Amino acid sequence: MANDPLVVFTPSGKRGRFPVGTPILTAARQLGVDLDSVCGGRGICSKCQITPSYGEFPKHGVTAAADALSDWNAVEERYKSKRGMIEGRRLGCQAQVRGDVVIDVPPESQVHKQVVRKRAEAREIVMNPAVKLFYVEVVEPDMHDPSGDLERLRGALADQWQLSDLQIDLTTLQSLQPALRKGGWKVTCAVHLGSRAYRPRIMQVWPGFHDASIYGLAVDLGSTTIAAHLCDLQSGDVVASSGIMNPQIRYGEDLMSRVSYSMMNKGGADEMTAAVRAGMNALFDQIAGEAEIAKTDILDAVFVCNPVMHHLFLGIDPFELGQAPFALATSDSLNLTAAELDLQLHPSARVYLLPCIAGHVGADAAAVALSEAPEKSDDLVLVVDVGTNAELLLGNRDKVLACSSPTGPAFEGAQISSGQRAAPGAIERVEIDPVTKDPRFKVIGSDLWSTEDGFAEAIATTGITGICGSGIIEMVAEMRLAGILDGPGLIGSPAQTGTDRCILDGRTYSYLVWDGTADGGPRITVTNRDIREIQMAKAALYSGARLLMDKFGVDKVDRIVLAGAFGAHISPKHAMVLGMIPDAPLDKVTSAGNAAGTGARIALLNQSAREEIEATVRAIHKVETAIEPRFQEHFVNASNIPNAVEPFPILNSIVTLPEVNFNQGSGDTEGGGRRRRRRG
Amino acid sequence: MANDPLVVFTPSGKRGRFPVGTPILTAARQLGVDLDSVCGGRGICSKCQITPSYGEFPKHGVTAAADALSDWNAVEERYKSKRGMIEGRRLGCQAQVRGDVVIDVPPESQVHKQVVRKRAEAREIVMNPAVKLFYVEVVEPDMHDPSGDLERLRGALADQWQLSDLQIDLTTLQSLQPALRKGGWKVTCAVHLGSRAYRPRIMQVWPGFHDASIYGLAVDLGSTTIAAHLCDLQSGDVVASSGIMNPQIRYGEDLMSRVSYSMMNKGGADEMTAAVRAGMNALFDQIAGEAEIAKTDILDAVFVCNPVMHHLFLGIDPFELGQAPFALATSDSLNLTAAELDLQLHPSARVYLLPCIAGHVGADAAAVALSEAPEKSDDLVLVVDVGTNAELLLGNRDKVLACSSPTGPAFEGAQISSGQRAAPGAIERVEIDPVTKDPRFKVIGSDLWSTEDGFAEAIATTGITGICGSGIIEMVAEMRLAGILDGPGLIGSPAQTGTDRCILDGRTYSYLVWDGTADGGPRITVTNRDIREIQMAKAALYSGARLLMDKFGVDKVDRIVLAGAFGAHISPKHAMVLGMIPDAPLDKVTSAGNAAGTGARIALLNQSAREEIEATVRAIHKVETAIEPRFQEHFVNASNIPNAVEPFPILNSIVTLPEVNFNQGSGDTEGGGRRRRRRG
Repeated sequence: MANDPLVVFTPSGKRGRFPVGTPILTAARQLGVDLDSVCGGRGICSKCQITPSYGEFPKHGVTAAADALSDWNAVEERYKSKRGMIEGRRLGCQAQVRGDVVIDVPPESQVHKQVVRKRAEAREIVMNPAVKLFYVEVVEPDMHDPSGDLERLRGALADQWQLSDLQIDLTTLQSLQPALRKGGWKVTCAVHLGSRAYRPRIMQVWPGFHDASIYGLAVDLGSTTIAAHLCDLQSGDVVASSGIMNPQIRYGEDLMSRVSYSMMNKGGADEMTAAVRAGMNALFDQIAGEAEIAKTDILDAVFVCNPVMHHLFLGIDPFELGQAPFALATSDSLNLTAAELDLQLHPSARVYLLPCIAGHVGADAAAVALSEAPEKSDDLVLVVDVGTNAELLLGNRDKVLACSSPTGPAFEGAQISSGQRAAPGAIERVEIDPVTKDPRFKVIGSDLWSTEDGFAEAIATTGITGICGSGIIEMVAEMRLAGILDGPGLIGSPAQTGTDRCILDGRTYSYLVWDGTADGGPRITVTNRDIREIQMAKAALYSGARLLMDKFGVDKVDRIVLAGAFGAHISPKHAMVLGMIPDAPLDKVTSAGNAAGTGARIALLNQSAREEIEATVRAIHKVETAIEPRFQEHFVNASNIPNAVEPFPILNSIVTLPEVNFNQGSGDTEGGGRRRRRRG
Repeated sequence: MANDPLVVFTPSGKRGRFPVGTPILTAARQLGVDLDSVCGGRGICSKCQITPSYGEFPKHGVTAAADALSDWNAVEERYKSKRGMIEGRRLGCQAQVRGDVVIDVPPESQVHKQVVRKRAEAREIVMNPAVKLFYVEVVEPDMHDPSGDLERLRGALADQWQLSDLQIDLTTLQSLQPALRKGGWKVTCAVHLGSRAYRPRIMQVWPGFHDASIYGLAVDLGSTTIAAHLCDLQSGDVVASSGIMNPQIRYGEDLMSRVSYSMMNKGGADEMTAAVRAGMNALFDQIAGEAEIAKTDILDAVFVCNPVMHHLFLGIDPFELGQAPFALATSDSLNLTAAELDLQLHPSARVYLLPCIAGHVGADAAAVALSEAPEKSDDLVLVVDVGTNAELLLGNRDKVLACSSPTGPAFEGAQISSGQRAAPGAIERVEIDPVTKDPRFKVIGSDLWSTEDGFAEAIATTGITGICGSGIIEMVAEMRLAGILDGPGLIGSPAQTGTDRCILDGRTYSYLVWDGTADGGPRITVTNRDIREIQMAKAALYSGARLLMDKFGVDKVDRIVLAGAFGAHISPKHAMVLGMIPDAPLDKVTSAGNAAGTGARIALLNQSAREEIEATVRAIHKVETAIEPRFQEHFVNASNIPNAVEPFPILNSIVTLPEVNFNQGSGDTEGGGRRRRRRG
C-alpha cells in the first residue's frame, strides 16, 4: 500500500513498501534481495544479520526514524548474549518494519556473496555452492494418515524451502528416523541442489539446528603434485591448503612413461589408479587434520587434472591417450560419488570433474579457462599454462581457441645439465654483465645477489646446488643479451665472446656460471646441449601460440597470462628475449598463479560456474598441433632466439639483441630444423 | 502419394501408403506400428520378422499380388540359412514394398507384446521393460575433431535411437574403449530407460551385435521364504523360478520377534540385514545356475516385501515399526543400485522396490494391487492376501481402501495342536459325515480319500502327520456343519454330539480325527484351544474386511480374490462357513495364487506399471484397524462361527448350519470378547 513504510536495501538498491510488522527477512525475500537464512526465519541460525541505518538519506529519498524497526526482542537478546553480535546489527527475521528504513545487507549475510581474489583482473567468485544447509520442522507421524518419515521430511523441505523431488542415499535414509526423533522433529538437512546430470538429493540429516560448517575440496591433480584447498561451503573461505607428491611418480616421472607402464604391465593402470586414490585419501586426512574437521564433514569435491591423470584417477586405462588419435574415453564433465572413486569423505559426498577440452587439453586447462575467462575478455588474451605439456588458450568475447604443445620437462629443470626443481639453493634470478660477461645471480632462500656482501653467509646452509626452471630461462636470455649466445643457439668461443667463462666442452662450448668445487660444491655450467633443450621447449610453446594466432587471424595479442605455479616465477622480459611468448608490452604479461586450482575452487563454490565452463568448453575450438603443417614451420623459426622471422618490435624497443653468429663456417645452424620431440 | 502401394498391418489395423522400395520396418515405424528391432534395420537382429499375406482381403480392401514385396535378398538368405526362419516370414528391415500388401506382426516381433497369464480375469502384462538393447554404429575418433568415445557413443544413440542425455556408471565407462575397438565401432548397448527418480543410463556396452538375452529378477521377499522369478527382459518369459527359506528365520519365526531381536541386541538389525542379503545372493546363484546364465546378465530387479522385511533388507532398523504410530522410514518406491544392497548381479544392475501402502501394508500388498488391479474393477472386489498378517484391499474404479489385520500364524498350522506346514502327510481336505460324525480326509501326496481303497498304501511313505492350514479351515467348518461345534466355538460332549470322537480333554472336549498310535503315528485331534486360535485368526481377517466395507458404505462385495500361496488352497465354501470371508457367491471367490510375486513380475517387465502402481498407492485410502472403534465390535461378532450378527444369506442358501449351543448353562461364550492379539 502507498502508505506502508518504505524499505530500501543496500547494496542492491531494491526497495518496496511493506505493512508495519513485516520482518525484514520477509521483505528481503519478497523483493529478491540476497539475504541468507538456514533456519527459515526462526531466529536460530543468525545468518540473516542486517544493519539498519537511521537518519536522512536524500539519495534514497528516505528519512528513517530511530524507531523505524521494532525493538530488540527476546530472540535477539538471547542470541547476542550467547554469541555476540556486531554493534548496530539486527537479526533480519526478528526485526520488523515500523517506518521507512534503509537496510544494509553485509557481505557475510549474502548467500551469493563474492569471495575476494587478490588479482584485480581476475573474475570474481560468487558463492553458489552445490550443497547447502536447510533447517526444517517436520510433521510427526500419525496413525490416521500413514506416511513415511522421509515423505514428511520431503514435504517440509518443499513447503519451507521450495525444494522438490529430493532423492536420498540409502546410507542417509538408514539414519533418518533416529535423527528426526532426536531432534524432536526439527532437523537440519544438507541438500545437494542437483545438476543437469543428477537430481537434488538429501545428503545428511542432523538432529535440531546444525550449528557447524560444511566443507568442500578443490583438488588440482597434477602429474607431479596433488594440491587441495579445503573450503567452507557457506563462507567460501579456504580453511586449509595442502599438497603431496603424486604417488604415481614411482611409475614414471612424466605422463607418457606412466602410459607406457600401463601398456607394458598387466594391471599397471589399476595399480596406478589405486596409488593415486590412496594418495588422495592421505592428502584428505592431512588437510582435514590441519583444519581440525572430520573428513565426513566434506560433502562436495571438484577435481581438475590433465587427461592422463583424469583417466588414471577414474580407473580408465590411458592406453588410447598414448597414440593417435588420442581419443579420450569421455571428455564431458563427470558427476560421481566419492565412494565410486574410493575417496573417504562423507558417505554421500559428490565429486565433480571438469570437462576435458581435448585428448591433450584436459580438465586442468578447462579450469584455467574458468579462472581466466578468456571468453569474457574484451581484449585478445593468450593464456599459457606452462608445464611438461603446455596448454594454450587464445581468445576474447568472439571466440576462444585451444591447443597443447609438448614442451617437455626442460622448464622444470629436467634434462638440463645443472638443472633442478625449484628448491633452496637453486639459482632463480640471473643477470650477466654485457661488458665483463660475468653473471650475478640469486638463489632460492636468499634475497641477495651473488655479488652482494653477505651472500656467502646467506647461502651457507643451502649452498648453490643448480639452476631451476625460471633460472634457466633468465640464464639463457641473459647469455643471448650479453652476446655469449647467438640467435641460432650456439655458445661462442672465448675468442668470439671475449670471456674465459666460455669453455670448450667436447665439440661445443659451455658457459661457466659458478664453480663451487673448491668448497665441495658443484660446478655449474650451461652447456650447448642445455641450450638445445631450452630451444626445443620454448619453440614448442611459441609455435603453439603462433598457430593459435594464425587460426585467429592475428599477428599480435593484447595481453598474456602465464598460469601455473611455474608461470608465477617467469620474468616476462626474459621469456620474451627467449622468444618463448609472443611480443607484447611487458606490463601486459601477468601471472595467474595456480589458475587450474583457482578454477577448481570456483567450480566448487559456484555450481552455475560448472554449467558455464561446460558451455565454454563446448564452444572452444580445439586446434591439434600435430596435424597442422604450419606448426612445424613455426617450430623451426622459433628455435632461433628469439625467432628467425618474427620481428618482436616491442621487445626490440626495450632491449638490444647483439647481432652475433658464432657458426660463420656453416649456412645452417644446429638449432633449427630439429626433429620434433615425442609428445609428452 | 495416392498412387503409392497401400500397406496394412495386422493385428493393429494401421495402414498407410508408401513409395515403392520402402522397407516394411520403415513403414511400420512411420505408422507407429509396434515392430521390434535391436539393430536398427541392419539385418542383424532378426527381431523385426513379419508375415506378409497375399491374395484378396476384402475386409481391408486390399488385393496383394504375389510380388507385393521385394525378392529375398542376400541378408535374408544368409540369416535363414544360419538361424532358420518360420516359413512365410520375412525380415521387416529387408523386405521392401512393391505393391499393396497385408503384413502381420507376430507377437514375438512386437516390442510391447503381451505375456500370457493363465487366469482369464487377471490383468494382461504388456512388455515394456526398463532395460533394452540397442545396436549402434559409432563414429571413429578423429584428430581434427577431438571428442570422447562416450560422447560419440551418446551421439550415435541419440541419432539412431533418439535416446538423449544418457548417463553411464564408472564401471561401464572403464570398459568402453576396448569394447568400441573390439567391435570395430559397432556395439550393442544395454540402456536403462530411466524413470522419475533417475536418468537414463548406459549399463553395458558389448562389442558388435550382442546376440544373447538380458535378464531381470522379480523377487517376493517374504518373512518365511524368498521366492524369485528370473525373466527374459526381451521375451518376458520366466526362464527359472526358485525359492529359499528366509535366513532371518533364525532370528525369529514371525516379524515381531525379529523386531524384538533388533531391539534387544545391539547390531541385531545389521545382522539380519546381512543375513537376508546373503540369502538373496545365494538364491540368485541358484536361479542363475538353473537357467545356466551368468549373474552379470541380470540387469534389473524388482522387490516386493512387507514393511519389516523392507526395512531390514534396506538396512533400516525396524524399531519404529514395532510401536505406534508404526512410522515407516520411507513409504515411496525406491530406485537403487544392486551394489548399494550388496547384491551380486551386473555391476550396474538397478533395483526397484514397490511403494509401501502404510506401516502395516507393505510393498507386497502394493504388488497384489498391481496384479489384481482393484482400481480397474467394474465390480466391487475384496482382495485378501492371507498370511500371519492379512492385507486387505477393497475397491472398484471409484476408490480403493486398504488395511491389514493381525491374523497370527494359525492359518499356517502354527499354534494348532496337530498343526503343521503344508507338506506330504498333512491333512488338507476334510469331510465329516453329518450322521455318523466320522471324518474322511485327504493328505498331501495322495488323491484318495481316507475311506477309499488303497489309501493306506498310498500314504505308506508319508504317513499322516498333522493338519495343514487349509485342512484346519475345512476341519473346523465341517465340524460346525456336522453339529460337533456350535456357533460360539465350543465342541460338544459325546452326549451332545452323539459321537465318541468327542473326548474330554481337560475342561473342554476335543474331536478325534485320526489315531495312528497303533502304527507309531500321531493321534490327531482338534482341541477346543485349536478352535479358539482359528476363531481369533478368522475374526481378525473378517473384521478387517467388514471395516473396509463400512468405510466403503456397502454390506456386501461382488467378488473375493484370495491371494497368497495359501489362498490358492482354501475352499471358498469352508472359508465362508467359518465366517472368515464375507458372504458371496462361491463362484465369485477365486484364487490369485502368488499375486505379490506376479505384481513384482509385472513391475519388472513393464516400467510404466511402476508409475501406475505408485499413483494407485497414493490414491489408496489406508484404514488403520487399531484406531477404528468398530473393528473391536466386528471382531467380537466375527468370533462366532460364522458370525454372531451377519446373516450370510448366500451361504445359508447352500448349507444348513445346525442350531446347536453346547454351553447352555452360560449366557456368554468363551469364544467372544477375547482380547485382541498383539499385532504381528
